[in-house]
Amino acid sequence: MPSLNIELVTIGTELLLGFTIDTNAAFLGQVLSAAGVRIVRRTSVADEPGQIRAAVAEALARSGFAITTGGLGPTRDDMSKHVVAELLGMPLQFDDVVWQAVLTRYQRFGRRPVASNRSQAMVPAGGVALPNQWGTAPGLWLDSPLGTVIMLPGVPLEMRMLMEHEVLPRLAARATGTAIRSATLRTCGIPESTLAERIGDLEDALAPLTLAYLPSVTGVDLRLTAWDVVAADAATLLRAGIDRLRAIAADWAYAEGDTDLAAVVLDQARASARRLAVAESCTGGLLGGRITNVAGSSDVFLGGVVAYDDRVKQELLEVPAALLAAHGAVSAEVAAAMVAGATARFGSGIAVSVTGIAGPGGGTAEKPVGTVWFGFSCDGRVDTQTSVFGGTRAEIRERAVQGALMGLWQRLQ
Amino acid sequence: MPSLNIELVTIGTELLLGFTIDTNAAFLGQVLSAAGVRIVRRTSVADEPGQIRAAVAEALARSGFAITTGGLGPTRDDMSKHVVAELLGMPLQFDDVVWQAVLTRYQRFGRRPVASNRSQAMVPAGGVALPNQWGTAPGLWLDSPLGTVIMLPGVPLEMRMLMEHEVLPRLAARATGTAIRSATLRTCGIPESTLAERIGDLEDALAPLTLAYLPSVTGVDLRLTAWDVVAADAATLLRAGIDRLRAIAADWAYAEGDTDLAAVVLDQARASARRLAVAESCTGGLLGGRITNVAGSSDVFLGGVVAYDDRVKQELLEVPAALLAAHGAVSAEVAAAMVAGATARFGSGIAVSVTGIAGPGGGTAEKPVGTVWFGFSCDGRVDTQTSVFGGTRAEIRERAVQGALMGLWQRLQ
Repeated sequence: MPSLNIELVTIGTELLLGFTIDTNAAFLGQVLSAAGVRIVRRTSVADEPGQIRAAVAEALARSGFAITTGGLGPTRDDMSKHVVAELLGMPLQFDDVVWQAVLTRYQRFGRRPVASNRSQAMVPAGGVALPNQWGTAPGLWLDSPLGTVIMLPGVPLEMRMLMEHEVLPRLAARATGTAIRSATLRTCGIPESTLAERIGDLEDALAPLTLAYLPSVTGVDLRLTAWDVVAADAATLLRAGIDRLRAIAADWAYAEGDTDLAAVVLDQARASARRLAVAESCTGGLLGGRITNVAGSSDVFLGGVVAYDDRVKQELLEVPAALLAAHGAVSAEVAAAMVAGATARFGSGIAVSVTGIAGPGGGTAEKPVGTVWFGFSCDGRVDTQTSVFGGTRAEIRERAVQGALMGLWQRLQ
Repeated sequence: MPSLNIELVTIGTELLLGFTIDTNAAFLGQVLSAAGVRIVRRTSVADEPGQIRAAVAEALARSGFAITTGGLGPTRDDMSKHVVAELLGMPLQFDDVVWQAVLTRYQRFGRRPVASNRSQAMVPAGGVALPNQWGTAPGLWLDSPLGTVIMLPGVPLEMRMLMEHEVLPRLAARATGTAIRSATLRTCGIPESTLAERIGDLEDALAPLTLAYLPSVTGVDLRLTAWDVVAADAATLLRAGIDRLRAIAADWAYAEGDTDLAAVVLDQARASARRLAVAESCTGGLLGGRITNVAGSSDVFLGGVVAYDDRVKQELLEVPAALLAAHGAVSAEVAAAMVAGATARFGSGIAVSVTGIAGPGGGTAEKPVGTVWFGFSCDGRVDTQTSVFGGTRAEIRERAVQGALMGLWQRLQ
């Protein structure tokens, strides 16, 4: 039995101009897939009535079911509701319940609604307004002879909350019993084509699962997908498939699912009852930020020193001035001194240091932009390693954070 | 004279499943708009021949010009090239020049090409292979009776480099003399609908410029766009429009363009020859990470202490244990003590501290999740302020970073 097929239409001139990254589309893809709904196409159009109308009409003609995001706000560039109401033949009517909700929300924040907020209480006749406690524009569920259109605001928090609380429960009523299920094996430190060569003919043996390679700044994810199968079968198939991939990529496979490498390292440290501290130069705090993005990190992570200026490396991490002068801040010697200093300062069983040249300036022939030295300290043993990362300043810093975590992962296994 | 109209087709099952965020689309939107090319629609489809063929054929029928991303890699789920070559009637031929480039690239990294890499040297007959020094899959420029298709790899670095070095120079040859130009005024601390009320009828007076409100976790950007105008006229129009918006939103407008608030604060500090240090608890290093993401921040930013554990607050920032016990770590008193400690530790003229409850756990009726206290120190004067932020753990932390920077911006004006 096939999944329910849906098309997404994301609306906003800014999406096409590229000033907004379409994170809503990614979120919708994930939650809809998990609910057994298959997104067969995504279309993005500008805030122009003709474009919006054409995109929604075409999506309905192909699939009979569309979800739109954007164009429901109080400002003038928001026109999706008017266009879709007209397309579906459902004229807009003032809805007193929605208006009261808008008024209540404004009262709660001690503000008065402005005239433009009144337009947010207009609901297409015969449609269902989906209450929005997280903003003023309600979502809409519109069943019509042309098909079903679900309209959601473009503000990510509001869109996510409406999906979770209003849309997914209603979609469940239309579910077909099958699902699309995926499982991911996350790797770091091996190139995509080398992975693909190692996997080789195994790909055929994985059928009916499909395999996708997802390279990113932090590594290559291997994603297996089971399409249109009963959920219980999917779980068994995926478990067996991931185990086969794991056997091939054991040295680089640090996690499954969307588990972050930082969470894995925290678990390793927790299991051995050791605390973690960091000393960062070129990453400027991003490593600590990544670690503490994991909820519950506080039982392992003590803290860190952001030693951006060399004086801070000397004063807070006891790196000798002579060492800095002799080898430069980006060197094995200084990385080792930084991590030893952090271990002493925080009294932690585990510590890591990062010092490098993130660019765009500061590179030399000997130490090009992207050169990063790491120091690792486990139970008093200090060692160092180096990498030369490519990409922009932001990418080099992100790769350096991942490199520091990967180094910890290897040493804590 | 109208701009050149183009459609984007981004290819990848992962885009629809939501496991990849389509950052390529945003990048292409920005660079193409700046080059006077108008993206009229963006379509995303799965790695399925029928879907790819339909999306490219429809885009060509509407616009005569399509750019695709994705599906050019060495793995089996990459099939875009085969489908488009067939659609355009340009059969694939082995290209020796491309193959030599693949071999050279592998030699440089000390690796041997695998069999699947040979498929990357197949080029549609009559098409132009765009050399890719940043990966193994060349881009393709395909002129056909159905229209022009430019095919780019999906790996962001390779796509960006091919656009810059190969595609944009060729597109310039087709440019029409007009351009789409935008200008942005960035605000923080004022809700979208309040901003819209203040702007009100001014929006009509801004014509022919169009105005868009772009709310995000860190504030609301106001974006003015001049469509299809001569570049010199656009600059004058946009300057006048931004000045009018600035007059209305002066208290919240911290920058223009894509300038980050961190860069503005660094400039303020630099202008007064003062150095900056940070003391972070709930943000765990993200504030230092945001500041050091600005290239050249090292002449202002000294560094910071990530005092995630209360022991670190005591030992590195001299926060008295009694103060922590009496008021809790998330309090005005501790924020003040943290920033005073950072000022003393780093000897900086300016410092900021952040301590809060990022959640999901740890909230109480008195101090709910999202409660954040900031401490500010300028030339020895210390003051504090508090906010309660909404959203996920990651959003609360991002808002806390922006709040710390906004507090500095206000105090340094």
